[in-house]
Amino acid sequence: MIDRLIEKIRKTNAPIVVGLDPMLSYVPEQIQRVAFEQFGETPEGAAEAIWQYNKGIVDAVCDLIPAVKPQIAMYEQFGIKGLKAFQKTVDYCHEKGLVVIGDVKRGDIGSTSAAYATGHLGKVQIGSKSYAAFDEDFATVNPYLGTDGIKPFVDVCREEKKGIFILVKTSNPSSGEFQDRLIDGRALYEYVGEKVTEWGAHCIGASGYSAVGAVVGATYPEQGKILRKLMPKSFILVPGYGAQGGQGKDLVHFFNEDGLGAIVNSSRGIIAAYKQDKYKEQGITPENYADASRMAVEDMIADIAGALQNR
Amino acid sequence: MIDRLIEKIRKTNAPIVVGLDPMLSYVPEQIQRVAFEQFGETPEGAAEAIWQYNKGIVDAVCDLIPAVKPQIAMYEQFGIKGLKAFQKTVDYCHEKGLVVIGDVKRGDIGSTSAAYATGHLGKVQIGSKSYAAFDEDFATVNPYLGTDGIKPFVDVCREEKKGIFILVKTSNPSSGEFQDRLIDGRALYEYVGEKVTEWGAHCIGASGYSAVGAVVGATYPEQGKILRKLMPKSFILVPGYGAQGGQGKDLVHFFNEDGLGAIVNSSRGIIAAYKQDKYKEQGITPENYADASRMAVEDMIADIAGALQNR
Repeated sequence: MIDRLIEKIRKTNAPIVVGLDPMLSYVPEQIQRVAFEQFGETPEGAAEAIWQYNKGIVDAVCDLIPAVKPQIAMYEQFGIKGLKAFQKTVDYCHEKGLVVIGDVKRGDIGSTSAAYATGHLGKVQIGSKSYAAFDEDFATVNPYLGTDGIKPFVDVCREEKKGIFILVKTSNPSSGEFQDRLIDGRALYEYVGEKVTEWGAHCIGASGYSAVGAVVGATYPEQGKILRKLMPKSFILVPGYGAQGGQGKDLVHFFNEDGLGAIVNSSRGIIAAYKQDKYKEQGITPENYADASRMAVEDMIADIAGALQNR
Repeated sequence: MIDRLIEKIRKTNAPIVVGLDPMLSYVPEQIQRVAFEQFGETPEGAAEAIWQYNKGIVDAVCDLIPAVKPQIAMYEQFGIKGLKAFQKTVDYCHEKGLVVIGDVKRGDIGSTSAAYATGHLGKVQIGSKSYAAFDEDFATVNPYLGTDGIKPFVDVCREEKKGIFILVKTSNPSSGEFQDRLIDGRALYEYVGEKVTEWGAHCIGASGYSAVGAVVGATYPEQGKILRKLMPKSFILVPGYGAQGGQGKDLVHFFNEDGLGAIVNSSRGIIAAYKQDKYKEQGITPENYADASRMAVEDMIADIAGALQNR
């Protein structure tokens, strides 16, 4: 799957991923109205609204990008109905040929971690039959529990040709509370980065990259530089671009010399672009919100390409 | 909710929680057969089987125990149908008066963490209405992302009178890879433990205990001793008893002098007790699997009570 992601990045010339993290407050009023007229102000209505909103965005940007990253929390908050909208979104993105990174940040141990891996990336055995449940292509995973938590995911990745991105240095302001703690002079995130390399050593694809990648926030470019070297064969999923403050120039050190090795996420900056003055001035209204998402994707591709050219 | 948990522990005289982590391989054949006859060897059939299995166990033990801890991964692996069985299990345990600890190990940042907190412990706003989704009483949470990940949960706990247990020192063999790393001579888990105390300082109930608790594995009694002192007002949820190797005598240091402060989980040891020779010799067959669960709960209560008397 890492090879397929790279192939798609090369084809689109866009090392970016659109985060499908729909807050109900992002969904334009006309979409909410139709959904609530049909299903009421209910979890079903909310799920319909975010699904229609997602569909509009995916239709508008799918030819420009290699991948999407739906954030399951935004669906899970609406319970079963919300998770159905998550499932529908994953399936629809697959129909459109997109690689789907499930931002699920799961992590447990042994058979429990195996169950998460099965549910998101693998197939579950039921009697004589087997079924895929959510069936994303990649999942994000939390490393706090160590190898016992990661290995079941790696096993499923190898069987099913899927991939994971392990949280190493996250984009948020308080990520340093534990991740930056110094152990014999080196930060915890460096030890986690070394483990990412170790865990991914036996799942290197034809591209030379491993199915085991890492999450490192755009908001921490210096740490990105260190981690890029510690994990030469791991793709880095980079959140924190745009709304969280990261810019193209902060990103160059997340990439390898081959111009690969990183994929940058933007969520709000793309999916709620229609709320930005910049796009309003270009004639965007809530009715054509998806056009703003397309413009924002084009701007992001140009920003990153420019930064990589000037490195 | 922490006060209610304590009240229930006092009433049952049982500081234990039964982990409802149904593997399909635990479900007795006669239950699987009926479910598969009705729904086929499908996710729906599997969900029906684990739900019926759970119901049998809950009916058999609910008067003996204060709380249950369904592990969502075991349901999530079957996708939407499995999560419906999770929801049904949570609702049924509430009907039976049990406190429900959702073992979900979620953790993200900002609005995303808020969405998880909303989905599992709070209410989601949809237009002019609000709805509870999974509506557990407690949730387990991963601390790797720091305060940004925890605060949204604490906020929901205060609003909704719910609680969380934060992973501090987990029961698995590799938990030390990161959690035991020494920072200025003290282990990472100690720093996390201190943060648990800090995060929970403003949600102390009438019982004197905080709504913010911690997870510390029974397999690490020495670390439990240290953490008990670092987090005097936090309840400790203790996994790793029974099948993972922890015994009653390992548990005494997890409790405070008041005999409170810890709740010990057993999953496989209770729900799949019918597979143990010990219970087979007492006439247990797969048909009366739930009777074995009741016997195992009684044995566990006696083991812990004995250990606490001899401390």
